[in-house]
Amino acid sequence: MLRSIPVDDPADPRLSPFTAMRERDLVGREGRFIVEGEVTLRVMLSDRSRFSLESILISPERAAGLDGVLAGLPEDTPVYVANKAVMSAVTGFPIHRGVLAVGLRGPQGPLVPPPVPAPCLVVGLVGLTNHDNVGGLFRNAAAFGADGVLLDAATCDPLYRKAIRVSAGAALTVPFWRLPDGAALLAFAEAHALVPLALSPAGRETLSEMVAPPRALLLLGTEGPGLPQVLMARARTVRIAMAAGFDSLNVATAGALALHHLAAARLG
Amino acid sequence: MLRSIPVDDPADPRLSPFTAMRERDLVGREGRFIVEGEVTLRVMLSDRSRFSLESILISPERAAGLDGVLAGLPEDTPVYVANKAVMSAVTGFPIHRGVLAVGLRGPQGPLVPPPVPAPCLVVGLVGLTNHDNVGGLFRNAAAFGADGVLLDAATCDPLYRKAIRVSAGAALTVPFWRLPDGAALLAFAEAHALVPLALSPAGRETLSEMVAPPRALLLLGTEGPGLPQVLMARARTVRIAMAAGFDSLNVATAGALALHHLAAARLG
Repeated sequence: MLRSIPVDDPADPRLSPFTAMRERDLVGREGRFIVEGEVTLRVMLSDRSRFSLESILISPERAAGLDGVLAGLPEDTPVYVANKAVMSAVTGFPIHRGVLAVGLRGPQGPLVPPPVPAPCLVVGLVGLTNHDNVGGLFRNAAAFGADGVLLDAATCDPLYRKAIRVSAGAALTVPFWRLPDGAALLAFAEAHALVPLALSPAGRETLSEMVAPPRALLLLGTEGPGLPQVLMARARTVRIAMAAGFDSLNVATAGALALHHLAAARLG
Repeated sequence: MLRSIPVDDPADPRLSPFTAMRERDLVGREGRFIVEGEVTLRVMLSDRSRFSLESILISPERAAGLDGVLAGLPEDTPVYVANKAVMSAVTGFPIHRGVLAVGLRGPQGPLVPPPVPAPCLVVGLVGLTNHDNVGGLFRNAAAFGADGVLLDAATCDPLYRKAIRVSAGAALTVPFWRLPDGAALLAFAEAHALVPLALSPAGRETLSEMVAPPRALLLLGTEGPGLPQVLMARARTVRIAMAAGFDSLNVATAGALALHHLAAARLG
């Protein structure tokens, strides 16, 4: 049974974490993040999620379909039910999906990869400021069983609303850890006996011909400038073979190709 | 030298192909399409483009940077120069990039793949209604040197504004051909001695273990329902190995993995 709390007043203070949604996407939410849409809410409510829920705001027509899922919620997690007009007034933009929730970030734990000699695959993102790309990379990291994702300071937040959605919820399940810069990512690789692999159109090895190291840190940079030279110089550099005159792949797509190759031996 | 035509009046009838842009994105443009942004305009003006330009609408600050490119235009192609406020008034939405052009579709020629025994790789899209996915697939088709793309009637238009942009211009360079349905795609494969390969989480063969046929039609369906069973039954079905409990990849990403594998023998 859904234990719902009907809400009619957009100014209801209990809904304050859902207000001014777009503006607060930009400035952050002090330990909270927003999950939107049924697919990601289901991931958030599954035991794969690394985060807990503070509250849910949902339209009556969507509440019915999620009854079974919501029944598993802790007793004290409020499920506010409001029609889409009220939801739109609260958030400040037109609500189509009718499914929103507030998640709690919790403290950032360290990323602890499986110890040597177990196989290990970690993704390292350097300077990725596009939420679609970061979301896509988390989706691909989950698809190919990566053990975690490292983010440098310049990479955008995987718990940004759109990044979670594009990740199909994988941003809620794949462990990630924020480090200051590329040098810290390389130090992490060394500490955990991971071979640093830098994916770049200027790479020396060709991906499809590379014998995958059993323990690797796959480094990905922005589509334009790519990875910093200082980082490339300290890694094995890998390129993806492409048609003549074309050296442009989306970074999340390039990451998927590399992850697939690196994980092939492990996956059924 | 840029032969520009300054325009100050948003109601100037010469700009009519640029008006009500979002509304006309939906209903079509009678033989025309819109290109936006510098990256795609450069592709449109290169000799890789399959389409010709009718006119350009550009802001003064962007015109300077594109001077060299625009100098190669035919004498009679108008380059209208207007500030972004006028451009926004014409198009009906805020213009940030300041680069727009109208392309001409021309008649749809048949897709003629390289004859037997040459290697050949064609992509077939069935029911793909998301412009990001179709744009992404064209980008990937270009990256891996596919000979062309077949579209069933339900698949959306690769010359839609956003699809061109997401394709990084590849929708302007990779030949495509519209066919009625999956059966017509299979008939095309048979007529051109292409092995039909259906990519699906339920595929019998695993991509990374498959010996790539030198001539193939790679069939891709929607992320949700996937390819129709009737089509799967008449094709070699291929799956991508993924982590346990995860069978979800973006369709453009899945297509990139398959194209990379199928094209590997051909690419340097």
